[in-house]
This record gives sequence, C-alpha cells and structure tokens, in this order.
Amino acid sequence: MNIIDIIAKKRDGRELEKKEINYFIKEYTENRIEDYQAAALIMAIYINGMTYREIKDLTIVMAESGDILNLSEIGENVVDKHSTGGVGDKVTIILAPLIASFGIPVAKMSGRGLGFTGGTADKIESIPGYNTEISEKEFIKNVKNIGISLITQSLNLAPADKKIYALRDTIACTESIPLIASSIMSKKIASGANKIVLDVTCGSGAFMKNLRDAKELSKTMIEIGKLANRETICVITNMNQPLGYAVGNSLEIIEAINFLNGNMPKDLKDVVLELGAYMIKLAGKGEDINENKKRLLDNINNKKALNKFIELVQNQGGDIDYIKDISKFKKSEFIQEVIANNDGYVQNINAEEIGKISCELGAGRKTKNDKIDLNVGLILNKKIGDYVNKGEILATIYANNLKKAKDAEKRILNLYLIGKEKIEEKTIIDVVS
Amino acid sequence: MNIIDIIAKKRDGRELEKKEINYFIKEYTENRIEDYQAAALIMAIYINGMTYREIKDLTIVMAESGDILNLSEIGENVVDKHSTGGVGDKVTIILAPLIASFGIPVAKMSGRGLGFTGGTADKIESIPGYNTEISEKEFIKNVKNIGISLITQSLNLAPADKKIYALRDTIACTESIPLIASSIMSKKIASGANKIVLDVTCGSGAFMKNLRDAKELSKTMIEIGKLANRETICVITNMNQPLGYAVGNSLEIIEAINFLNGNMPKDLKDVVLELGAYMIKLAGKGEDINENKKRLLDNINNKKALNKFIELVQNQGGDIDYIKDISKFKKSEFIQEVIANNDGYVQNINAEEIGKISCELGAGRKTKNDKIDLNVGLILNKKIGDYVNKGEILATIYANNLKKAKDAEKRILNLYLIGKEKIEEKTIIDVVS
Repeated sequence: MNIIDIIAKKRDGRELEKKEINYFIKEYTENRIEDYQAAALIMAIYINGMTYREIKDLTIVMAESGDILNLSEIGENVVDKHSTGGVGDKVTIILAPLIASFGIPVAKMSGRGLGFTGGTADKIESIPGYNTEISEKEFIKNVKNIGISLITQSLNLAPADKKIYALRDTIACTESIPLIASSIMSKKIASGANKIVLDVTCGSGAFMKNLRDAKELSKTMIEIGKLANRETICVITNMNQPLGYAVGNSLEIIEAINFLNGNMPKDLKDVVLELGAYMIKLAGKGEDINENKKRLLDNINNKKALNKFIELVQNQGGDIDYIKDISKFKKSEFIQEVIANNDGYVQNINAEEIGKISCELGAGRKTKNDKIDLNVGLILNKKIGDYVNKGEILATIYANNLKKAKDAEKRILNLYLIGKEKIEEKTIIDVVS
Repeated sequence: MNIIDIIAKKRDGRELEKKEINYFIKEYTENRIEDYQAAALIMAIYINGMTYREIKDLTIVMAESGDILNLSEIGENVVDKHSTGGVGDKVTIILAPLIASFGIPVAKMSGRGLGFTGGTADKIESIPGYNTEISEKEFIKNVKNIGISLITQSLNLAPADKKIYALRDTIACTESIPLIASSIMSKKIASGANKIVLDVTCGSGAFMKNLRDAKELSKTMIEIGKLANRETICVITNMNQPLGYAVGNSLEIIEAINFLNGNMPKDLKDVVLELGAYMIKLAGKGEDINENKKRLLDNINNKKALNKFIELVQNQGGDIDYIKDISKFKKSEFIQEVIANNDGYVQNINAEEIGKISCELGAGRKTKNDKIDLNVGLILNKKIGDYVNKGEILATIYANNLKKAKDAEKRILNLYLIGKEKIEEKTIIDVVS
C-alpha cells in the first residue's frame, strides 16, 4: 500500500477501504506521511466527500490512534454531551451537576478555549482552587464516589485528529462535514462514552452557518454512531447570537450558578432542558422527553442540582464560598457600558464577532500557549427580539485595559443591528435521531 | 491577499484572478507558502480544473519565475519542438540537424532523463567529447555561426514549474491537463521560442493514455499559445510501443545516425516528417505540409542533414569519427536475446514497461543524482503488427550485468503479447492547430 495510490483513489471520487484509511492515519500520525500528502488527500476528501462507511472507519481509526478511556467501571451506559461550538456556551457546567443529581454518572472531559469559542475547562477554573488536571484514575474514582467529575483532557485522546485538525485549519478544509463529524465522534469514542447527545449549533456563531448543513452534519454523526455502536442524538440549536447573556470565563460561571439558583435565561433554559431530557433518555432513566424536562426543572427548583455542583467543586478542590456568594468573584478593573443610539428591536448580534471581541479583551486564546484573563468578557443586556430605547444599555464590557474596553464598545455598538420589526428566534431548531 | 482564501476559492470551483495566481507562484517559489498549502491548492486545481485564462496566467507567471532566454539575436521566428514524453524518442536528435539543414536556426535546450523516459541531453552525450553544458552566450554564438546548437538546460528556467512538478509527483497530481499544459508551455516560453510544435504522445507509454485526453491537452496548449502570443501546433502521435527499435542512450544515437543515412524505421520516419513539416511551416519556409515532407526526405537522401549533424557534433567538441563509423560506439558486456516461444502477430508492447526495463538496466535515472550507463538498453526486433515465428528473436538486450540481463529477458518476453490477429498501428493520430 502507498499513499500516492490512496490519494489518487479519493482524487477520482472512489471509496477508500478501511485498510487504506487505517494506513493513512497510522503512517501520518507517526510522521511517515508528509503534511503535503495529507493536505492533498484532505482536499480530495473535502471536494469528493466520503460515504458513511468511510467516515465511520476514519472515526474509529482516529479514536484508536491514542488512548481510549475505559469507563466500564462507572456503568454500562455512560452518556456524554458535546457541543459543536458556540459563544457563551455554559451548558456543560449546568448540565453536568443537573444530570448527576439524578444518579446518572457524569464523567466529563472538557476542552480549553481556542479562537473565538471559550472552553469549559477554562471557565470552571474561574472558581479558585478547582483542579481540572487530575489523573484518569482519580477522575474515575471521583465519579464512583460522588457520581460526577469534570476535568480537562490530559490523556492523549485521538492524536491523529489533533494533527489533521491543525492541518485543515491552514488549507481551507475546516468546513467539511465528513471531517468535522469524524473529528467530533473520534474524540467522543476515545473518551469512553457509548451514548452521545450532541448539541449541533447552527448560525452566525457556529461552524454550520445554515440548517441544511447542520442537518447533514447531524445525520452523518448519527450514522457514524450507528455503525460504531454508539447511540447518538443531535439537537440542532440556534447560534445566531451568544447563548444566555454572559460571555467570558468567570462571567459565565456566575451565570451558571444563577441558573442553578433558578434564574434561567430563556434560550439557555431551552437548550439545557432539551439536551438534559435526551441525556436522561439515553441513560435509560426516562423515555418521555416532556416528563424529563419537568424533572430537570424540579431538580433545579429543589436545589439538588446546585448542591451537586457544590459537591463537585468541593471534591475537586474548589472554594465553594464562591458558589454560595457570587460577589466574591474578582471584578475586572474597567466596566464600560454600550449605549443604544436609536430605538427599535434588536435584529442581529453576530455571535462569532462577540466571541472575537471577548477573546480580544483577554478571555480567550489566539494561540495555544496564550494565558487567559478569567475576569474579562461582556454581558449582553439586550438580545435578538428585545425592544431597545435610545440611551438604554445594550451590553456591559468587563476589561482590564481601558483601550481594549473602548475598542470593544465601538465594535459591539456596530454589531447590534436595530430595526423596526420584531424578530422571533427559535432556540431549539430540530432534533435528529 | 492570503493563500487560505485562494485555496478556498479554487476548492469551491471558482476562477482565480491573475493577481491570485501570481501571489501563489511568487510566494511559493520564495518559500513563503508551505508545501502542504500548495498541495491542497494543486489538488483543488486537479479536481475542479481551470479556465484557459487561468492556465495562460499560470503559464506566464511560471515562465517569469526565473530566467527567460532572449533569442531575438537569432531571428524573428524561432521555432521549438517538444515532446510530452515517450520511450525510444530520438526525434530531436534527428530533427534538429534536419531542420537546420534548411537554414532555419535551431537553438535547442533538452532535458535529461528521469524515470522511464530518457533525455535527449543524455543520449547525445553518448558521443565522446560532446559538451551539452555550455553557456547561454556560447549557445547563441553557435547558432549564429553554424545555425544549430543542442545543449542541456543550465539556465534557471521556470523554477516555479520545477518546484510544483516535484510536488505533483508526490501527491498524485501529475495527470492534470491544466498542470501539464502550463508546465510544458512555461518552459517553452522561458526558453525563448515564439513558434512551438508539440509532439503530444498518446498511449501506454505516455502521460495521456487515451485520445480524448491527448486532444484536450493539445487544445489547452494551443489556447495558451494563442493567449500568450506563441503560435502552437500539436501533433498527436502513438506511444503504445517505443518509437523506432532502439531504447537506451548510445543505441538511440546509433539509430538516429542510421536514420540520417537513410535507414528509417517506419514509425520514426512518420513522426520526424510530420513534426518537421510543421516546423518548416511555422518558420515561414513552406506552407504545404506534403511538399515540406518531400523536402525533408530530400535533405536526408542528399546527406545535408547528416552533414549538419556532423557539423553540430564537431562544433560542440564531439568525436565525429563515431558518426562516420558507428562500430566505434562501446558495446555492452552482455548481449541477451529474447526468443519468441509461440507464433503469431505482435499485439502489444507496453512502452512504459520497456522504458522501466531500460532504466533498470542502467540507461535511466531513478533519482536525479543517479549516474547512467550510456551503453545499455535494448533493441526491439519485432514491433506491433509484425509476424513472429516461434524461435525468432523478439528483442536484444544490451547489459553490463548478467543478472539484470536475465531479469530483463523474462520481463520483455512477458510484455510481448502475441495473438492471431494482425494489428495496424497508426503513428500520426491527429494534428491539432
């Protein structure tokens, strides 16, 4: 077997065999295939596509390129949740303790932020003392002891995916459905889950800009899941604007704590309940989605979810006083309000741009090794569909640099599109299973 | 401008602007674009194609990436001839003095062999003393003095093409018509010709395996020629078997000398006359192709072409006694005959495989730095359409290693497909202008 023949096959639109996919991934991961050869093959995949069978094989082979977490000690059905990426997404921080409050084990590995999207691991580190970097053994022990652990990825999960992902970024091949689907599913399979609920974001702040692509990505991941024996459900959610009001690490943690205290922004609530209801279903703890949603609300109202969160934070070394009193979170040095200069309904707030502004303020990383500022970001006071009077606050910026605060103010004011018509945004667009 | 946007544009099948093609070639030649980015773009070009306008721009920009030979001192109309590659191709060695014998200036730069195809520069170096590596100044001076010079490429012609050509080879993108066309035409433009006759080979021993592709390549090069103001004619010739009988450096030179003495294998004669007649036409020295062919035969019969060849060899330091007495050429150590083991008509002799066998014997290079053996190769005694009796000689192998000779014998015997039907091969398939 040789890589030139494999490239030629995909170049001509033919289906690759499993052994050919395996050869490519193995040899490329071990640096025996050159980046330029991988780039040519990836471009051919981008243009000519892949069958579900090929995508499944690519997924499995990438998952098997590194460590595979064994969660069999935890239970037979381990449910994981993943989002294809958004801005203001604090869903995992809320859902993890909420699901665990039903006695469903939650063994959650989350990533760090890069570019315009934040990372759950960074966000939870806003709580002083919280240790996301514990060993695999301790991670599993925690889940067995208290039913939940939330850490960052320290294992060598799907290294082939990491290498290909970095390459795709430089050759205009990020927005490929076979490659996105196999990237996500390989990491989920490597992290040990056998039931997967996926939040497929769709809109200006997501990889999938339109519903057709979001549906195709969902269908692809579900088919991979079937072929790889991992039951998968996709919830397509709106990412035309940030989720909730807060964007930035500690600001989002505060919003999550408020949520668990019953103060739930509408769109965030819709997403948490929809994903949560399907997680309960896949865990075998409740077939009826509407009933599951009621039970989720119950566990918020009766504080079971909040208490599980406190237990999680305490167990990972975090200071729980911050949960009990959010005023303890350190404030940024500068607070800058963005004031509306005309009346009308908010028509649009480009989520990707908001994510970039937050990143510029210091909340995110431009490159892997950047240090982030946990206390900066922004709070949207108005969202799409809200009526605004001239002089009202549209958003509040939290910054540790005055110039950056002023720059952000200008950019945010431009992002708020104000018009006469009231826009209705639907948060849950579709469920694909 | 940035390379990722350019890649994305071609990935989506859109037409690149001249400034974008220029940016890619300039930055890539100067190593500011990575090989993997170039590989992705080239694969996108392979799959999605290019318009004639794009190919013309690519050609001109590649030609301008290095030295451009100025042949204006030699004459207003400088005609060049080029073949897209074949096995046993000694046409340039015959045509160069033949054309020069009409007083048409011949300033010919030829390449060295790589892989299964030989190179004219290597072949002519079989004549002891012949110096192919002279300066540009001396080259032009020679043409002015005696009307002909034949050297190897010492100038930095179309370095962008060299770099892209090497990359294409490793990413299964050699057989792309826009890329082959721009590669050939950029080198022709850089070597200073303004009238170009192209021998577009077609068949098992050529890049173009079928007539449809050969016609498309021809049409593409003619269109580039039009847009770039270089009159171009393509002669599509058969490369289902080697051209003539000899394959290997000194063996081909001997066949060329025999040709100039009037001993002309049928297929080689057809190609020489067809290409030669169009070269005379483009040089403005005769409109009638059939008349031109007759004049070409005249200059062989009256030895004017042979004498011009002797003049060329002498002028470049070669020992002309070898031309006058071909028995002076050094013989190989071993001579191995390939004997037919059944009766019938020769149906097929895969030219590419013959080229590879010759290369294995030492006549060619596998990598750029290999040293070649000028005296090895093979003579085909039978060609397609010939009748063979069991026990007759099919081919004769000239080797300097007994094991290699025996290996070649087995392989050649397998290549000769013998059957009951008489096959008619047409040498000149089409002329496109």
